[in-house]
Order: sequence, then C-alpha cells, then structure tokens
Amino acid sequence: MGQNVAQKIISEHLVSGEMTYGTEVGLHIDQTLTQDATGTMVMLELEAMGLDRIATDVSVQYVDHNLLQTDEKNPEDHLFLQSAAQRYGLWFSKPGNGVSHPVHQARFGRPGATMLGSDSHTCAAGAIGMLAIGVGGLEVAMAMAGDPLYVSMPEIWGVELTGELPDWVSAKDVILEMLRRHGVNGGVGRIIEYHGPGLKNLSAMDRHVIANMGAELGATTSIFPADEEVRRYMASNGREDEFREILADDDAGYDVTDSIDLSSLEPLIAKPSSPANVVPVREVAGEEVFQIVVGSSANPGLRDFAIVAEILAGRQTSDRVSADVNPTSREIFEDMAKGGWLFDLISAGARIHQSGCMGCIGMGQAPATGRNSLRTVPRNFPGRSGTDEDSVWLCSPETAAAAALTGKITDPRNLDMDYPQLALPEKASVNTAMLLPPLPVDEARQVELVKGSNIESLPQFDPLPDSLELPVLLKVGDNISTDEILPAGARVLPYRSNIPKISEFVYTQVDDTYATRAAENQGGHTIVGGGNYGQGSSREHAVIAPRYLGLRIVVAKSFARIHWQNLANFGVLALEFDDPADYDKIQSGDTLKFEDLRTRLPDTDEVSAQLGDSSITLRHRLSPRQAEMVVKGGRVAMAAEKQGEPGKVADSMS
Amino acid sequence: MGQNVAQKIISEHLVSGEMTYGTEVGLHIDQTLTQDATGTMVMLELEAMGLDRIATDVSVQYVDHNLLQTDEKNPEDHLFLQSAAQRYGLWFSKPGNGVSHPVHQARFGRPGATMLGSDSHTCAAGAIGMLAIGVGGLEVAMAMAGDPLYVSMPEIWGVELTGELPDWVSAKDVILEMLRRHGVNGGVGRIIEYHGPGLKNLSAMDRHVIANMGAELGATTSIFPADEEVRRYMASNGREDEFREILADDDAGYDVTDSIDLSSLEPLIAKPSSPANVVPVREVAGEEVFQIVVGSSANPGLRDFAIVAEILAGRQTSDRVSADVNPTSREIFEDMAKGGWLFDLISAGARIHQSGCMGCIGMGQAPATGRNSLRTVPRNFPGRSGTDEDSVWLCSPETAAAAALTGKITDPRNLDMDYPQLALPEKASVNTAMLLPPLPVDEARQVELVKGSNIESLPQFDPLPDSLELPVLLKVGDNISTDEILPAGARVLPYRSNIPKISEFVYTQVDDTYATRAAENQGGHTIVGGGNYGQGSSREHAVIAPRYLGLRIVVAKSFARIHWQNLANFGVLALEFDDPADYDKIQSGDTLKFEDLRTRLPDTDEVSAQLGDSSITLRHRLSPRQAEMVVKGGRVAMAAEKQGEPGKVADSMS
Repeated sequence: MGQNVAQKIISEHLVSGEMTYGTEVGLHIDQTLTQDATGTMVMLELEAMGLDRIATDVSVQYVDHNLLQTDEKNPEDHLFLQSAAQRYGLWFSKPGNGVSHPVHQARFGRPGATMLGSDSHTCAAGAIGMLAIGVGGLEVAMAMAGDPLYVSMPEIWGVELTGELPDWVSAKDVILEMLRRHGVNGGVGRIIEYHGPGLKNLSAMDRHVIANMGAELGATTSIFPADEEVRRYMASNGREDEFREILADDDAGYDVTDSIDLSSLEPLIAKPSSPANVVPVREVAGEEVFQIVVGSSANPGLRDFAIVAEILAGRQTSDRVSADVNPTSREIFEDMAKGGWLFDLISAGARIHQSGCMGCIGMGQAPATGRNSLRTVPRNFPGRSGTDEDSVWLCSPETAAAAALTGKITDPRNLDMDYPQLALPEKASVNTAMLLPPLPVDEARQVELVKGSNIESLPQFDPLPDSLELPVLLKVGDNISTDEILPAGARVLPYRSNIPKISEFVYTQVDDTYATRAAENQGGHTIVGGGNYGQGSSREHAVIAPRYLGLRIVVAKSFARIHWQNLANFGVLALEFDDPADYDKIQSGDTLKFEDLRTRLPDTDEVSAQLGDSSITLRHRLSPRQAEMVVKGGRVAMAAEKQGEPGKVADSMS
Repeated sequence: MGQNVAQKIISEHLVSGEMTYGTEVGLHIDQTLTQDATGTMVMLELEAMGLDRIATDVSVQYVDHNLLQTDEKNPEDHLFLQSAAQRYGLWFSKPGNGVSHPVHQARFGRPGATMLGSDSHTCAAGAIGMLAIGVGGLEVAMAMAGDPLYVSMPEIWGVELTGELPDWVSAKDVILEMLRRHGVNGGVGRIIEYHGPGLKNLSAMDRHVIANMGAELGATTSIFPADEEVRRYMASNGREDEFREILADDDAGYDVTDSIDLSSLEPLIAKPSSPANVVPVREVAGEEVFQIVVGSSANPGLRDFAIVAEILAGRQTSDRVSADVNPTSREIFEDMAKGGWLFDLISAGARIHQSGCMGCIGMGQAPATGRNSLRTVPRNFPGRSGTDEDSVWLCSPETAAAAALTGKITDPRNLDMDYPQLALPEKASVNTAMLLPPLPVDEARQVELVKGSNIESLPQFDPLPDSLELPVLLKVGDNISTDEILPAGARVLPYRSNIPKISEFVYTQVDDTYATRAAENQGGHTIVGGGNYGQGSSREHAVIAPRYLGLRIVVAKSFARIHWQNLANFGVLALEFDDPADYDKIQSGDTLKFEDLRTRLPDTDEVSAQLGDSSITLRHRLSPRQAEMVVKGGRVAMAAEKQGEPGKVADSMS
C-alpha cells in the first residue's frame, strides 16, 4: 500500500521506532519556531545547557505575542530575545514584523520539512505540506540542540474535501464545521490529512486557516499535500526554488476517514466560550455586537483582510461597534496599503493595530463585560480576551464584517450586496528587512545576552540525592490544574523570564503560605496530590517555579500527561501510590523518607517512602533514559553535560 | 491703543472684571473638550449636579488616552463616556477617531471662540485664533453647565516671528527654541501671542505644534491670528464658512515681547528628562537610539508623518530601532494611506498603531530602561513613558526619522539626501462617521448611563455642619504633593472612575493605615499639614478621595494654589495657621473642635479651633461666593441646587 503525505514525511525523518500507531517514534527536526511568550524561557534553557550553536536547519525567534510595552519589562524581553537569537544562531523577527505562523510559512516554510514550535498553532504550516507540531518550550530547546522529537505515533485521519465553497462562505467555516462535528477532543492522538478534489478550490492561505485550527480539535497536527497550489504560493513569495511536490500515493490509506462537501457549507459561528460551540450564523442572527476583531493566525491571509475591506468599502461601521483590525504581518500590511484595502478599512472606521497576535491572546482590545465580540481568532476560552466574563464568538472575516456594518450578528448572505470578487496580486510583497539573519559563528560567540532587570537565568538544579527526608508542605485533592499551581494573567505573566520572582506566585490560589514556607525550608520538600495532578495548560513554569522553591518529589494518585513530562524534564520525581488508599495516610506536615533513589530508579519502578514507622509503596513510570535524566537533575542538566559543560552542574552538586 | 488678538477675544467674552493684569476676569465659554482620562470624572460630576443638558455651543467627549483595553475596565469606560455624551448633549468621538486636539481643531475649531478642556494641551487650538485653556475637570463641568471661567487676567506676551525655516528645520524646532530660551516656567501667567511676517511661512498645523507645547512653557495659553492661512486650512477641511478673520490691530501692544528669526534656527532636541533641556541635535549626535515615536498632539499634522515617510521611503530602519508611528486621527490616517505615505512607512519597518495618544502619555510602547527613545511628543518628564528609568528625548519628525535610519542621534541635515518637497493634498479627508452627534433633548433624556462594575457615581457630599469635633488622623510636613496624597501609575489609574476604590490608595506612600482609620471614623476627621500643602499635579482625586473618607478640614501653614481650589470645590475647608508656630502644638491623635462654621465663614476670615483648653486662630481665604460653596458641600452641590435638584443634596444632610 502507498503512503499518505504524513507517512512520507515521517518516514523520511524517522530516527527510531516504527510507524505503528501508539508506539514511540523519534523524528529528526529540521526547523523550530519560538515566540516571545514562550521564547524567553527557551532561550534561558539554551543558556543553561551551555549550547554554543543551534543544530537545526532553520530556527526563528518571533516577537508577536506581547507588543504592548506598558512598561520596561516587555521591551527588555525583546532585547533579550534579539541578543539570544544572535548568540545561538537563530533568525530574529523584530516586533512588528508579524505573527510567527504566516511569516514562517511565507519566508521559511518548506514542503516535507519537520518543525517544532513552542506555540500550539505551529501546526498551521501543515498548509504547505510540512509536519509542524506545537510542543512545550524545553522540547523546542532540545530540538535546537539536535535531539529528535520522541512522540507516540498518531493515527492518520484522512478528511476528503469535495466541491467548492459558496459565496460568503470561506475556509474558517470549513474548520468550524470540523469543530461542530468532532468537538475539541476530536483530533487527539491524530494527524489530520486533508485530500480530495475540493483542495483545488482552497488556496495555501485558506489551508493555513484550516491547519492552524487543527489545534482546537486537539490534533497532533494537520497536513495538506504540497501540490500545484503550494507551488504557486511559494512562487508568489519568491521561493519557488524551495518547492517540492509531496502528494499522497494513489493507493494511500488512512486510519480514520471523514469527508466534507464544501458546497454544502454555510456561514458558521462558535458561540461563547468554546471553539466547538458551533452553530449556523443564521440561528443566532440579531444579537447585538460590541466589537469585531479581524486578524490572528487563524485568518492571516491578505484575502482575509481584503474581503473585509471590500465589504466595508464606502460604508461605515455601526456606531456601537469597535472594529479592530490587526494585519498579520508587515508584508501583508504592505499589500493592504498597496491594494487600497487599508484605505477602505480606515475610512469605514476600523481601528488599525500593529502586526501581532493582540486580541487572539488577550494582549489588548479586550471587550466590555458580557458584550459580544466577534473574532476571526482561533480560540474563545472564557477570559482569554483579557476580560473575565467575556462573550467571544469565532467566525469568518465575512461574518465579522457583516456584524461591523449592522451592529448585530448577521448572516453575511443577507447583506444587500454582491459577494466581492477579489483581485489579489500575483506577487506577494517580500520584505525581509525586519527578519535579522543569524550571525556567523565567530561573531555570535562574542554576543552577550542582554538581560534587563526582570530577566534571570534559569536556576541550576542539582542532581537527585540518594536519600531524602522531606516534609510534606502541601496536600491537595484531585484534578489540580497548572493554573492552580501557577496562575496566568496580567499580574503574573510579565515575570515569565524571572523564575525567582514568579515562584512567589506558586499555589497562591490554594495556600498562600506555601511559597514562603517552601523558600524557608532549605532542605527541599514534597507535595502530595490526588488524581490527574497537573491537568490543563502545558506551562513549564508550573514545574520550574516550585522546583526552584525546593520541590523534589510529588506523590500523587495519578498525573496529567504533559505535567508528568515537565516534572521529569526538570528533575522532579513523580511517584504514584501503589495503593491509592495510602493517600489518606499522609497529612500535611508529615515527613517522608526516601532511600537509595539514585541506585534504584534506573532499575526498578518501585520506590518506598518511610512515614513514621510505616512504609508506603510508590511507583514511577520513567523509562531508563528518563530515570537517568531525573537522577542527573533534569533534561537541561543532561544536555549541559552533553554540550561539554558538565562543570556547571557538578559545581552545584550537594 | 488697538487690541491684540488675545484682548479682542477676551473682551468679546468678558462677563465680569476688567482686562487688567492680575485682576479676576469672568469669561463666557463657547466650547469644551474632554478626553477619557479626565472625562469619566467630569461626566460623573455632571451626573452629580443633575445637569439636564449642556449650555455650551459645542462640547465634545474624546477617547484618545487609553485605548489598550488590557481588560474590561477600559472598554467599559468607553461605553460609559458614550452614554454620558448622549445623555448630556455632547458629541462623542469614538476610540480610534484620534487625538482630541487636532480633531477638535479640524472639525469644531472656530476663530474667536473660547474653549476649556480637561487636558493641558487644549491650548493647541490657539493655532487658529481660539482662546483655548486647559483646566481641571470640574471647571470644564461647570462651563458645560453654563458658568463662566474665572481667571486672573494674564499678561499678553507678543512673540514676533520673522524669516523662514531652513530645510530640515520645522515647527517643533520653533517651540523647542522657546523652551531653550525661557524654560518650563517662562510662560506662567501669560498668554503667548505669535505675530509678525514669519507667520506666512507657518501652516495652521505648524502653528498647532507651537501652540500645543505652550503648555510646556507653563503658559495660560498660546494664540495665533486667524489670517488667510487659517482660512485656507478651514477651507481644506470643508469649513470655510465658519472662518472669521481676527488680526491684531496695527497699533496693538503687548505686555512682554520677544522675537525669533526662523531662518536662524537649526534642528534642536530636548534631552532627558525635561522639555526645557534643549540643545542643538549636532551636539548630541552619535548616541545610540533604541526607539523613535512619531505622533501625538505635538506633531499631529499630515505633514509630520509625510515628511518621515519620504525620508524613510525606499530605505530601512536600523536593526536596533523600533520605529513606532501612531497617526493622529483616522482622517490623517486616511490621507496617509491615500498619499502612499503609509505604504512607505510600513515598508521601511515602522510599527503602525491605532490613532490616539499612546507613547505621549505612557499608554504603550514604553522603552527599555535607560535606552534612548526619540519622540515627537510634547513631554519627557521622568517615567512618563511608562518606564521608571527612561531616557526620552523630544525632537522634530525630521530628527526622529534620521535616527530611525542611522540608529544614532543624527542631525537630519547630515543625511545624504535632499530635503523632501511634500505635495500635500489641497483638500484634507473629511470623515466624521466616528464623531457621533448629540442626541435631540427628548431622546437624550431617555438615555441611561452605562456603568460597568468599575464605574461608581460621584459620592454625594453633605454640607458643612455648623460645629465639628474632628480627630487629627494625620500630621504631615512641608511640600506634600498630590502624588503623595493620591499616587498615579498603572496600579491606581484604572480606578479613576471609582472613588470608593481609589480612596483605598490615599496617602498609602506616607501612612498606609490612614485610609483604613479614616473609613472607620464615621464622624469625619482633619489633617494637619505644613507649608505648600498639595503641590504638584492638579488631580481632583487628591481631594475627592480623602473627602470620601471623611476629610472635612485641612489645617496647614499654606496651600498650593490648585489644590486649595480643589478643596473648596469639593467642600473641604482649608484653614491656615494665623501663627505658623501653632503647627507644633497639634499632634496626630489630638481632637480639634470648631464652632459656628456656617454662620461665621461668609462674614469673617477668622476661624478658631479648640485644642484641649487652648484656642488656635486660623484663617480661610475664601471669597463670600467660595465660602457659600464650601458651606453647601462644594461646587457640585451648589450646581445641583441651581439645576433644580436640591433634593439630592438635602436628602443627605446630617
């Protein structure tokens, strides 16, 4: 049997394992992408592991998430990222150059390449036949250092597209239809591969919309073939020489299948506050609208802005609507100016914002409480807009434009006008002046990292001692989320480059004495948890910060997958009760004693803890490789050893 | 002797007093302007005084200061302001429509009219022959209610302009020359009137630059004649019918005189951190630059952006420079798009921001600590950019553009190019769709104020009781500033529409138990101060918030002028020691008893306070009108009575 597109790319990059669903495969990584919100920590990790020069073909540090610069912390993060990119050999995309995903696709995207990004929408590059996966920051750092990505082989889900989208219906409605059908977990453990005759009616940027929001389905990634349309797209960006055709073999198969007749779709909208609350726009028409936001990686193409401009051209937005438009990149911004669309938007009353993520991640242009905000962004989780009790809807640019005109949710087919026929330029603007290339190695080695007062190096974590006597500083219940371990929000986020500072916020919502008690307890401590410990957001800080405060071991009934990996990555031993009933035996304030950890861990999964006179049986689920990592103090320490700087770690051994 | 322009307008608006320097005159006010940072309190004051409909010809509520919308508070302020404008009969300029001063001048400016604005740069409208004065919020509220402005008659300072500006030198350099010569207090108590043959070489928007920054000289206002250039300007804005020529009489005189030969000027720059630290650019050339910011009411004209665009056109900004451009208004934004200048700016690497004040008032785009930021804005006070230890320089658009290209402070005359010759359109874009007109009275009366959870009505303050027995909750020393009474900054400012909340911050930097103790002390209290009590910023909140906490009387050695007026406006009795040595007799915790206040105040300036067995002689400096105001609980209470809503006040009498 032939191969589909995903299988072709995976097999070309396979360094370990076999392409059997559910088994671990190791994949060589060609490219990485980091953005500012996660990138500062990634750069601190590169520093901590003593990396000299990245090993990937292309790695790019973007600045797109936080551009508000309300005080010095934010611009100092930008300076730090620029210096780190220079030091380690990355490209640097200056603030204002645009959102990582569309910029990366246009300037660096290469069919058949693999990419990791410390951003969940990294998958967007699947639009041009890349295998692009969003992961945690340390995974990206390790890929830059040359490590493969180890991942459980996903199912390949073939979605066949037929037909052609009707007027007033666009790519966003396709992915909203997927979410309507399958919900936010529909893609978990799967790569979604789109194929079929309907593809010829979807541009590369249309495909970007669809691939991008595969993240909302929970998919590992999404992928499209690299076909003639991708060739055209790359040629329009001046990069046809890097095009390579990758099509599924005629006899390729898929593990799961589905199909969508594009001609049957109508304008859709996701109601507050989940991307999967999808209904036809007509069903909710008439609701008053306070704001529209057009932009983000979910509708980033020139087309997405031009269609809004042509719908609004010569008209005025409703008195009660704030029409916020942030062009995705400065190249698209240029094309909007050149084509007259920018003029149309300004004249119609749009508020034009600098190129970046903005409303997509709640960095500015938050709506009023309970007022409807229609956005072309990918997510509408509660509060993500920056407003606690928000009411955010997800829709196509056409549906957003219609609401801007009428001040109400409006099926755009009911606007009294013909569907605009866009004449987009054959050649896209190419302007790379804000993309600073990597420095030559010799120059790079001279670069000092520029650390503002809020940027602290990643703390060095010492190896796991052979025996530990640890007080239980906290005992918590089931389903503790990483938001409870380390809150997000405007109060805490500015300190994401500063582990000592951010550690003051650990567990404040659960027990605001924890951070102080932990810091006072120099000998380390343990936390006891219930089931599904560490669910939710993947943030590494929820491990790094408590580890900084002295957390050595977490004992729980069970762990959430990503948090478990993060604990191991940073040298915190995660142990599960062999008998969950033992959870009740331990109280906050008790002391647990562990012996022979360094010797036992690699050999057996059983660890016993001494509680007073009795012994409790615990188990870890570490592979021998992972056990070695924990013993050595975590993945950064292990990588530092590999980079020839073991001294950094040895010095701090206790 | 003939009259100068200022005298002509004052005499036309005189309702009391005579035009003799230093004596009080009452002036009829034709127009008002409020912006969002001060306007929410002004609207709450209109509500508190029970106003039905404004009495001015034109009043406009702008939203330009805070457009970041990092959470729901900011957009809810916007909704509140829109509803209040509708309720009371104001125009409403939507967020994104632009900075108040240039928009007001273009759309509502009328030669010969008087205007008050709750913004210190209101004086900019002097560019077209208006008498426009920046004042505190309550003064503006009272003008809307129909009250005259009472002000001490200023000196008229005639500044004769001759010659023509050389290439690479522009209007900003003229006002920087004034600041170089006269410093930040050079204009105090004066109206600056520009005249002379050099005027014919300065456009109305050039004059706006100069008039605007008269505020930095401390001037009451600045004024230019309404000449043929003003006619041309108004015609280009489609409003020639509202033009009226106002020229100084041939034999007009001035109280003070100065002159500037425009042809002798060179590019100037104000070093950190005062607008008066002015030196030639060439003297500081070569310093590394991190950022330029182009925009604000100090360089708001299309010309100011077009010249930057033409200097940058086809070139690229330096790798180390962030080039932040925020078009002043959406009309200018339109013209920038139409003329191709927006394209040039984007292509050269500028970050384009929505129309508003932004970097001028530290609402976004803050620089990194200690890094040089060259800005076309009017002020560079320490920390005003949002960064505590900032390094902000003030310069012309030409000088900012030169720095963007080279990454260093650069005399623009040393750029290797000819000075661009601009071809500006004869007709400016006129687009008033984001300026919502006042509602008809009947409709207006139906409007409910939209108050988000952070917007609280102005508390009602009861009349002054006849006798009071007040504990001294705080005793402070000399020169207490309003910043110490009520801090500014990102932590406190968001609560400016919420007196109960903001009152928690009163005196936190001096004694953080004060607010709690005051709130617990239901019967009211007094504060004892030294000399120059209440210096600094004019903020009304430094009176309203402690009054809300129960402050009834302040006893001090002396008071700063504006704070003294604010105390009277909000019904707090300001008393000065007859013998300053008595200051030492009173301690925190003592009790002061006052008798016969209501009867004595209007008749005599002497008040005695009983301290234990002894009596201390104190004096107020209230006029009979002001004494009546304090007795009635302040100016809002008095106005409420006048508006026929005395019940609102009587209800709360104690």
